[in-house]
This record gives sequence, C-alpha cells and structure tokens, in this order.
Amino acid sequence: MNHSQSIETLRQALRRLPGVGPKTAQRMAFHLLERDREGAQVIADALNETLRKVIRCKRCNTFSEKELCDICTSPRRDPEVLCIVETPADLESVEQAGVYKGMYFVLMGHLSPLDGIGPDDLALDRLSDLCNREHISEVILATNLTAEGEATAEYVHQLLSKNQIKLTRIARGVPMGGELEYLDHGTLSQAFSERRVI
Amino acid sequence: MNHSQSIETLRQALRRLPGVGPKTAQRMAFHLLERDREGAQVIADALNETLRKVIRCKRCNTFSEKELCDICTSPRRDPEVLCIVETPADLESVEQAGVYKGMYFVLMGHLSPLDGIGPDDLALDRLSDLCNREHISEVILATNLTAEGEATAEYVHQLLSKNQIKLTRIARGVPMGGELEYLDHGTLSQAFSERRVI
Repeated sequence: MNHSQSIETLRQALRRLPGVGPKTAQRMAFHLLERDREGAQVIADALNETLRKVIRCKRCNTFSEKELCDICTSPRRDPEVLCIVETPADLESVEQAGVYKGMYFVLMGHLSPLDGIGPDDLALDRLSDLCNREHISEVILATNLTAEGEATAEYVHQLLSKNQIKLTRIARGVPMGGELEYLDHGTLSQAFSERRVI
Repeated sequence: MNHSQSIETLRQALRRLPGVGPKTAQRMAFHLLERDREGAQVIADALNETLRKVIRCKRCNTFSEKELCDICTSPRRDPEVLCIVETPADLESVEQAGVYKGMYFVLMGHLSPLDGIGPDDLALDRLSDLCNREHISEVILATNLTAEGEATAEYVHQLLSKNQIKLTRIARGVPMGGELEYLDHGTLSQAFSERRVI
C-alpha cells in the first residue's frame, strides 16, 4: 500500500461491516476520499452519535434512545399480547406489515450451538421476568422459520409453558405470490399438512 | 422507524457508501449495534483520521499523507516515464502487478459528458505543467479500456502531442486465462487486428 497508512486503516475498519470484503472496502474508502469527503464525515458523526445515544429498552430489549421505547410506552398498543422476535430488524418488518398492535420482546439473536450461542446469550431471563410480572394473555413466537429460529421458538415455548399463557407460532406456508413449481419441498409439505378449511 | 432517530440517521449516512441501498444500510447499522459496537467506533475513528491526514500528492495527484508521495520521492523509480491512470485504485493495481517502475499521474476520474465531467474537472492543467516542467521521455496512457477511459486517453493524447513526448497506450487483447468462446466481439476483434509476430 503506497498511498497512506490511514487509508489502509480505514480499509481494514470498513471490513467490519457485514458483507464487505477487501475489494469492496477499498472501493468504499476511495469513493469517499475521491468524491464524497462530506459523506465520510456524515458517516463518522452518525456512528458516534448512535453509539452515544442508543441503548436497549428496559422492557422489550429493542434499541431505543429512552429507557422505555415508543412502543412500550404507547397507550394505543395491546399490553396483553407479546410478540417475540429475534432482532430489532425483525421487529421493524412486523411493524411495517402493519397488522400487529401488541407489544414486543426482542431476544437479540437466536440459539445457535455451532456459533456458541446458547440460552444464556439471549435475553431469556428478562423474558421470563416480564411474563411473570405482567399480565400477558398470548405470546406469539415470531422467530425466523430457519433451523435456529425454530429451535429458539421451541426453547421459549418450554420456558414459558409453565406460565399458563396461550403460546402461538406464526403461520407456515406458501408466501404471497409463491409459485408451487419453484417452492422447496419443506414449504410445500408444510402448506399441505397445515392446510385450512375455507 | 420506531427505534430511534439516531439509528435512522446512521442508516441514511451508510447509504452514502457506494453500492449500499436501504436494506444493506439497515443490516449494517443493526449489525454494528447488536454485535460490534467496538467496530462502529473503529470505523468512525478511521474515517475521521483519514479525513484529517490524507491530502493529494503535489506532483502526481494521488492520495498521500505528505506533500509528495512515496513513489514521487523514491530514488528507485525512473523519473522519465509517466503512467497516467484514472484513480488511486488503478495506480495500486498497476503497482501490485509489479511490472512498472516509472512515475504516475492520477487524473482522479475520466471524461464523462453524460455525468457532466469535462476536461476542467480532471487535473489536466497540472498534467500539462508537469510535462512542460520535467524531462519526460514516455507517457503511458493507462486509463480504463471503457468508452470514458478511451475518450480520456484520446484527450490527453491531443493535449500532450505538442510536447514531442513518446505517447503509448496499454495493450488491448485477450486477458490471461481468457477463453475465446466467452469473449465479447470487441475484445476478440481487437486481439486479431492488433496481433503480434512471434
């Protein structure tokens, strides 16, 4: 590297972004320096501000700038229904779908023994406490329908089964616009075995 | 966006990176906050340090932390040969190939009328000055073999043709490992019309 040590440092730093390899990191570094120095400053400032301001909501564990997030303090949400998701990004997807009006709990991950992520690494204690403390009538398990998400849902199911709460899982089946010809066998067999009377 | 205004700001900021759309920016922001807060700080610091330290080399126009870059001040480079490239990334590719031992000049872009980039936006005045001031025996035009790169090479060719300098262009043809079956027609016809006696 002939240019400068700080460009090399920046290139290494940008590789910490997900999905960014050495070539992409170089392209990003050079792009910012050649054409968007203002953008580089904007990114640096946004990172610092986010690190300074963003904490976890004390109740639902999602990202928030306050002790309790906007959803947990909203009077328009049903406090008796709790939707359990893996990440804040999942929470946002559910919000954008616009169909759910209850509360959330964010695990911040899923069980993954291969990656060394066990029950102690998720916020399961806080989830237990919350279900013991508040009056929850239904818990919707909305972890991903991947192997890890299913295992996590099963674990939470067992954890909460002693609480006499109705536990539900989001429906499995053919996605909107799905064509049977191109669906995997697993989805198709689920769609058949969980078929509904119309 | 329910989480926080600063996450939203960060997401918008990350979109200024090349090739990063809204979904990728969100994934990056959440990844840093969920799993790599230290990485976020590393990136912010690297951006700030690079912005503070990196300037342009006064002679060859590439990125440098000093007034003159390491190549321009090296006693081991041939000062009579000048290789003209579009960007510092191109310079680095040539360096990594390891075959060239002369000097460089970095235009910082290429002519592109559609994007509003004309001759005044490139460092052509400084290139002219350099060729008038120093004793250059050969200028190698190593801009990209794209439409814009070819137009830029042609413009530089005309600009410097009055200087009585030997002007050369990097060779066009079939790349290493290239299979004729999969080559585009343009490359193949160039490889034939510029064939060499062996």
